[in-house]
Amino acid sequence: MTKSALQVARAAYKPKMPKALHGTVKIEEGAATQSVADQEAVEKLFPHTYGMPIVKFVETTDKIDYPTANVGVILSGGQAPGGHNVIAGIFDGMKSLNKDNKVYGFLMGPGGLIDHKYQELTADIIDEYRNTGGFDIIGSGRTKLETTEQFDKGLEILKKLNIKALVIIGGDDSNTNACVLAEYYKAINAGVQVIGCPKTIDGDLKNEMIEASFGFDTACKVYSEVIGNIQRDCNSARKYWHFIKLMGRSASHIALECALQVQPNFCIISEEVEAKEQSLDDIVNEIATAVAKRAAKGDNFGTVLIPEGLIEFVPAIKALISELNDYLAHHQDEFDAIAKDQQRQYIISKLSADNSAVYASLPEGVARQLTLDRDPHGNVQVSLIETEKLLAEMVGNRLAEWKKAGKYAGKFSPQVHFFGYEGRCAGPSNYDADYCYSLGYTASALIAAGKTGYMSSVRNTTAPADQWIAGGVPVTMMMNMERRHGEMKPVIQKALVKLDGAPFKFFASNRENWAINTEYVYPGPIQYFGPTEVCDQTTITLRLEQGK
Amino acid sequence: MTKSALQVARAAYKPKMPKALHGTVKIEEGAATQSVADQEAVEKLFPHTYGMPIVKFVETTDKIDYPTANVGVILSGGQAPGGHNVIAGIFDGMKSLNKDNKVYGFLMGPGGLIDHKYQELTADIIDEYRNTGGFDIIGSGRTKLETTEQFDKGLEILKKLNIKALVIIGGDDSNTNACVLAEYYKAINAGVQVIGCPKTIDGDLKNEMIEASFGFDTACKVYSEVIGNIQRDCNSARKYWHFIKLMGRSASHIALECALQVQPNFCIISEEVEAKEQSLDDIVNEIATAVAKRAAKGDNFGTVLIPEGLIEFVPAIKALISELNDYLAHHQDEFDAIAKDQQRQYIISKLSADNSAVYASLPEGVARQLTLDRDPHGNVQVSLIETEKLLAEMVGNRLAEWKKAGKYAGKFSPQVHFFGYEGRCAGPSNYDADYCYSLGYTASALIAAGKTGYMSSVRNTTAPADQWIAGGVPVTMMMNMERRHGEMKPVIQKALVKLDGAPFKFFASNRENWAINTEYVYPGPIQYFGPTEVCDQTTITLRLEQGK
Repeated sequence: MTKSALQVARAAYKPKMPKALHGTVKIEEGAATQSVADQEAVEKLFPHTYGMPIVKFVETTDKIDYPTANVGVILSGGQAPGGHNVIAGIFDGMKSLNKDNKVYGFLMGPGGLIDHKYQELTADIIDEYRNTGGFDIIGSGRTKLETTEQFDKGLEILKKLNIKALVIIGGDDSNTNACVLAEYYKAINAGVQVIGCPKTIDGDLKNEMIEASFGFDTACKVYSEVIGNIQRDCNSARKYWHFIKLMGRSASHIALECALQVQPNFCIISEEVEAKEQSLDDIVNEIATAVAKRAAKGDNFGTVLIPEGLIEFVPAIKALISELNDYLAHHQDEFDAIAKDQQRQYIISKLSADNSAVYASLPEGVARQLTLDRDPHGNVQVSLIETEKLLAEMVGNRLAEWKKAGKYAGKFSPQVHFFGYEGRCAGPSNYDADYCYSLGYTASALIAAGKTGYMSSVRNTTAPADQWIAGGVPVTMMMNMERRHGEMKPVIQKALVKLDGAPFKFFASNRENWAINTEYVYPGPIQYFGPTEVCDQTTITLRLEQGK
Repeated sequence: MTKSALQVARAAYKPKMPKALHGTVKIEEGAATQSVADQEAVEKLFPHTYGMPIVKFVETTDKIDYPTANVGVILSGGQAPGGHNVIAGIFDGMKSLNKDNKVYGFLMGPGGLIDHKYQELTADIIDEYRNTGGFDIIGSGRTKLETTEQFDKGLEILKKLNIKALVIIGGDDSNTNACVLAEYYKAINAGVQVIGCPKTIDGDLKNEMIEASFGFDTACKVYSEVIGNIQRDCNSARKYWHFIKLMGRSASHIALECALQVQPNFCIISEEVEAKEQSLDDIVNEIATAVAKRAAKGDNFGTVLIPEGLIEFVPAIKALISELNDYLAHHQDEFDAIAKDQQRQYIISKLSADNSAVYASLPEGVARQLTLDRDPHGNVQVSLIETEKLLAEMVGNRLAEWKKAGKYAGKFSPQVHFFGYEGRCAGPSNYDADYCYSLGYTASALIAAGKTGYMSSVRNTTAPADQWIAGGVPVTMMMNMERRHGEMKPVIQKALVKLDGAPFKFFASNRENWAINTEYVYPGPIQYFGPTEVCDQTTITLRLEQGK
């Protein structure tokens, strides 16, 4: 296998860890916990794993003998930089407990557990993947572990491989399901612990005890690198407005972090759009106003960051999509019989007045997309809507109107970009390499301590790594009840951007300046070998959240 | 101005230089030269700058006093990483000759010379831009310096600022024009030397004496970083085919270099398409065949690299576009009067049989684009054609046919990307930082030696920098006569990918393996501070060309 020079050099990196994890650890237990909301309902659903204490690991000089315990590992959902290091941390942690411990990886996500597809992860394999991006060591998948039938099927192979604990590396949904599984295995006395690890580049799995989901740091740095490069180009060529969409499902953490890093001329935060009940037209006006103000200074160029989930946060579009889904579900044949060039008019005539007006205001391509591309459940595939093109086109139209009215005299040439796959599997930054390895190592300590229904937690990560705090948080503590597919379900509360949080407030207090002036920052590529202020800093979001 | 930690750290980098340039230099002149072709015609056009010797700088202990000489600098054309370092090299070089020398930058490209827009570049300004990407220090532009009227207008301001030499940093066309200007100023005894520097990320300005155009190294590394990340994602998710278009005007050097760096499943080289007279259909078949072969192994994922200029190298499309341009130039009103949904049929009925068939085979969106988006001269804007979408769609259609015919049973989900602006203004790699600084410093030595009509040349750059060879090459030596806009013009021969060159041959001998197996390499981000094998290597293209 051919390797790049960096792949070779980076393989030798030793991730930094909390001081406590370097030797033998002992566990310190805190007080009993309760869920963030709906305590009664959550407790009822998790009688065996509710109310457990937060735990913390501290150094000890005690010598402890651990019996052998095999561990299974699952990567669940979308890729995030550092997943391989979580597994390396688990491996090294389990081997340090007892050299006979084995680690098994279930292949292609939770499905591997159900279908009994697995591979033993030996030292050779682990070494091949240390400090690398991607989830290719065992693959990932989106099968949901939800039914007792699946749990029982999984238990068969866990028993067969003598696996005492399962670590599920995933986002909020996967960790919720990990806890359901932990509860079930405890209820039936299966003898298998379940530990979760917080993963997602989206950054929406975080709370008081979980500072960050891994991968967010690296992904944002990669996006900020290329956005910074585009901004330098923008500032050199002085002739394009770049509309840049950024991955990140619903929350706008990625867009916000990138904005903090690069100081663009404009950044949309979906959570603010929703809170202010803005229409697409309001957003277009705001951007067009910034374009016009810059044009008045002779600056016919700029950058706009757009969070992927935007469309669903615009109340008017949300309402339109909902009615469209509903209408077409009952009139698909009628719609299909309409001549192509009449379809738009047909839809306009059928929708309620408000939605009809919104639909009529959309550019033709997007209007068509809303009626054509539907997922297997008959829903519009919102993620396929090229919001970056939509906004660029609508802003262009608005400026053309203003030009006619004599309110604007600039030039407007847009370029569009979408970044997502560029960052999900990047090689982890030092922060993510260290954080992930520590999360994995901590998971092994939780296993040794006999815990189940816990998420691995590493905190104080804006300090140097030896001051990081390793421990575990009961997953039930992060839960509340939410309506999902028409049913109340216990789920980990998703963390959206808080409009009263320090990161958003910092952005909001600077954006006027960034909009009109050219205050671009150029973060450059992730560095692994240089000065610590270049290589070891985590996100600005986390630093602001922690008041640093 | 807010700066990232890397911006601050990188500012302190001292570019490495050829050993000869560290102290006082003396010039060594070689034998007289001649142009690569059309010697008589070129000599006739450049009586004062034809046939000059190649020169080389070597160390000397002689102490030489240089009179003061101010220098003007112009950035011409598209951005390329390292432009600021060329200027820093000129500045440091001129100051080392005589501390009273001044450097002036003409603003926003060659237009600044004609319009007398300039700025003195002081030490403070230069220091602000050392080792940074972009051309924002003085801006760039695409005005062509071609007429004696422009030359005379420029001379006014050169005289006023007491400028003895002008350095034009640009691509093949800009360097050609620099030589025309040098010839003119020499002919009229204007007392202004003109020196060129080889710039372009496209990599198509190179020959025996000019190993590389600056920026190619950095841009390819940035593209390879993100393509590598996508490949890791591709190999982890195992469900997408990524079609990735790469900037690079006509030549495929960027696509080829990226292919050498990342080992994708497929890479199209335009020069090969032309040589083999391939149709779009042939290309689609080749890609679909690779997709089908991988699918047969259970691998429904992969990567395809596409050079930006491809479309113009497909003989059938070239012919179609040419007839379309011609036909619509004479029938635009007739065409506009046709109902939108009849236009495609109209065009099919009007073109010659061959072109009509090609047009009919194109997906609707592209067919429409070919008739709608026209530049001010009435030509199709080929660069706007989203080749990556076109190919993804056509491959999908072909696979659907094969599926019906029972010849293919895989899944095909494409994702498309286009990378260009992400790399043009990236911070220069160590190679480009060193190379550019050396080119600029060498330009100052050429000025000191009284040369004009030369291009700054730094060679042997696959060796450590102190072994690099600094010198100058007469621009006329690289010229031949080519037909441009219906007229024979002296131009620097553009370097396309040579199908018998080592880089292409290496690619060709490996691509079968890369197509079917998953041999991805992950170059990762450009590193500035690590081991030399990670930080200081230049392109694989150059290493293969030099047999290293």
